Amino acid sequence: MLFMKEHVTKQARRAKEASRQLALLSGEERDNALLAMANALEERQAEILEVNAKEVEAARESQKVRQNMVDRMILTPQRISAMAEGIRQIVKLPDPLAKTDFEITRPNGLNIRRMRVPFGVVGIVYESRPNVTADAIALCLKSGNACLLRGGSEVVRTNKTIVEIMREAAVAQGVPEKFVEFISILDRDAVVVMCRLRQLVDVIIPRGGAGLIARVVEHSTVPVIETGTGICHTFVDKPADLDMALKICMNAKTQRPSVCNAMETLLIHRDVAEEFLPKVAKAMIDAKVELRGDEACRKIFPDMKEATDEDWATEYNDLILSVKIVDDLDAAIEHINCYNTKHSDAIITRDHDSAAKFEKLIDAATVYVNASTRFTDGFEFGFGAEIGISTQKLHARGPMGLEALTTMKYFVEGDGQIRG
Amino acid sequence: MLFMKEHVTKQARRAKEASRQLALLSGEERDNALLAMANALEERQAEILEVNAKEVEAARESQKVRQNMVDRMILTPQRISAMAEGIRQIVKLPDPLAKTDFEITRPNGLNIRRMRVPFGVVGIVYESRPNVTADAIALCLKSGNACLLRGGSEVVRTNKTIVEIMREAAVAQGVPEKFVEFISILDRDAVVVMCRLRQLVDVIIPRGGAGLIARVVEHSTVPVIETGTGICHTFVDKPADLDMALKICMNAKTQRPSVCNAMETLLIHRDVAEEFLPKVAKAMIDAKVELRGDEACRKIFPDMKEATDEDWATEYNDLILSVKIVDDLDAAIEHINCYNTKHSDAIITRDHDSAAKFEKLIDAATVYVNASTRFTDGFEFGFGAEIGISTQKLHARGPMGLEALTTMKYFVEGDGQIRG
Repeated sequence: MLFMKEHVTKQARRAKEASRQLALLSGEERDNALLAMANALEERQAEILEVNAKEVEAARESQKVRQNMVDRMILTPQRISAMAEGIRQIVKLPDPLAKTDFEITRPNGLNIRRMRVPFGVVGIVYESRPNVTADAIALCLKSGNACLLRGGSEVVRTNKTIVEIMREAAVAQGVPEKFVEFISILDRDAVVVMCRLRQLVDVIIPRGGAGLIARVVEHSTVPVIETGTGICHTFVDKPADLDMALKICMNAKTQRPSVCNAMETLLIHRDVAEEFLPKVAKAMIDAKVELRGDEACRKIFPDMKEATDEDWATEYNDLILSVKIVDDLDAAIEHINCYNTKHSDAIITRDHDSAAKFEKLIDAATVYVNASTRFTDGFEFGFGAEIGISTQKLHARGPMGLEALTTMKYFVEGDGQIRG
Repeated sequence: MLFMKEHVTKQARRAKEASRQLALLSGEERDNALLAMANALEERQAEILEVNAKEVEAARESQKVRQNMVDRMILTPQRISAMAEGIRQIVKLPDPLAKTDFEITRPNGLNIRRMRVPFGVVGIVYESRPNVTADAIALCLKSGNACLLRGGSEVVRTNKTIVEIMREAAVAQGVPEKFVEFISILDRDAVVVMCRLRQLVDVIIPRGGAGLIARVVEHSTVPVIETGTGICHTFVDKPADLDMALKICMNAKTQRPSVCNAMETLLIHRDVAEEFLPKVAKAMIDAKVELRGDEACRKIFPDMKEATDEDWATEYNDLILSVKIVDDLDAAIEHINCYNTKHSDAIITRDHDSAAKFEKLIDAATVYVNASTRFTDGFEFGFGAEIGISTQKLHARGPMGLEALTTMKYFVEGDGQIRG
């Protein structure tokens, strides 16, 4: 533990030192380094694929790794090209730094300007997808931050290879060597150490399942931006276009069930349940979705499992849907505010007053009227690549683009002003 | 502990429920309630003064309460009028809610709007000044938030009286009764309980000394905005107007030494130390400031104590100043980034390049060129009343006005959009 703590602290200190040098690079210098990194990933993909193939093989043989996790580990030439292409897209985004977003000259002549500046060192804790490594490094460099990364243990060598290739390309462009530090110690406590380096790490972003996020929140003394857990709801109101509702529900549940903005719970107004529930239930079953309903649902459509209280609080990330009939809009709002993860919730309604009340009272980063929750995404919002989707209320909420990786700083310039 | 936990949780739950009703009040309704609260404080000041006098007397007799803390506890008719006047100033500020700060219609027809919305429940932990109670309630109500307050134990009855008077006035204006919940349990662990109510409390703001802030940061799982600890530096560069430097240093140290934006450490460029140090040292001593210097300082001006490493890391909040001679700008920047609390630091210089480098590399909420650090303050920045001065980088940095008490929410409206 002591050695591990020293080692992680040393890495964070190096990243902090590099962050000071990064602050002096121009936007053009950062972009040139990003392009070099994208090219290097493609040119040296054989090295990555070789290491990755070994790790995937080891994971397949391991009893400890679930098979859907193995799928996420796998890299292919196409996936590496997609990583490189993602970096090139980031290059095209405007520089998030050095923007003045507030300026005032006070009556005493003091000039006060507020500008966007990098955080310094961004700590990112993530799980098994190696493409997150490339995304995180690129988004941090574009926003002038050094980063301290901790990925999943199954792909530690794949990640290290990606980091080394990107580092070499960046250094050749004048970026300080330690602008990315990758923690390869497998001990889970390394995450706890990282979360408590208050003088060295400026913000921690956990990307992954609810367990990882809870662990970071529990132990961190560094400010945390929670991301991604999504128990998303759709409420079908009484005066709703039920054909539209059906299409939206099918899309929200089945188009990509493994992601955070997929629907996990469907709420139906009592007065339309007799008509709507059998239709949506049949369509879901045809799409191989397992249904879990409350008693009222099962009276109308008996061919579903019974939903328990645990179901309302579960993010399935899978072809499973919990369904509940509610008495009215207020009951829907109450259920959602009790069980949602403050991510994305939708109402399907023709009633403007219902929509307005739902928008006002639902406590979530994104509230939808007559659309699928699947749109909560940096690209869909027009922001470009995102580092995650914030489900907390401080600093950033919803899809987090480059600006979410910056903070602000006040610059006060005078000619001798003192306070009276 | 169990009873206390239940009790605090129940209070937070009531505040959460009230926050939903608050979300439906208009800006005018909130302002009317604020004016009624200001009037009630003045009309019923006798009740407050009576309770306060008893608590002050008890504190004077207590061995446990330091006498400078007793001064902060005391209320007078003038101080109560100032509290009421502060609330009337808040009424005059623009409504921070319901502002659209981003809007886009996507090619698929989805309309995405981002608006400022209240956090919900703001938890504030503070120490012995009872005026914070009135400020906090007013700033939270103006920004549509319910609040959960925990003040210093020496003034618990004064605070409760203020809360009850403000509550009655607000309720008569249609504000839900539980929009403010005051924790009067004296057990220190009540703060820990409060900091861990993740589903009920949306943000915690500690206002007070370093010990209080460290305790909240250590235990909180609710996002925290750290405020106020200030080890502020002034660096007198080689090419500096030394008359200006002297005036600024005296102001930064002596104009109000007990506050967070006062100077604690003076750094002097080696090449101007022989000339500047004796002047500033004599002026400080005349102003009853105790000096603590490094060895180089004491060679030039022997009439000062020796500074230890602990001095560089201490916020005196008193008429004490640590002084150090540095070789150059880089050494000044390194010292400051090592010991500052990310609050406010100043350079006094005639060199544009030095100023620019200092501004870029100093890691603080506010960086000054040729002015006193004492200006870091909501009113001085033109923001009006502040809930605190953030020394962290998430969400808010520097003086926190009303907008810092809001978060954002995305509203997505469509006519049946699904994701392809």
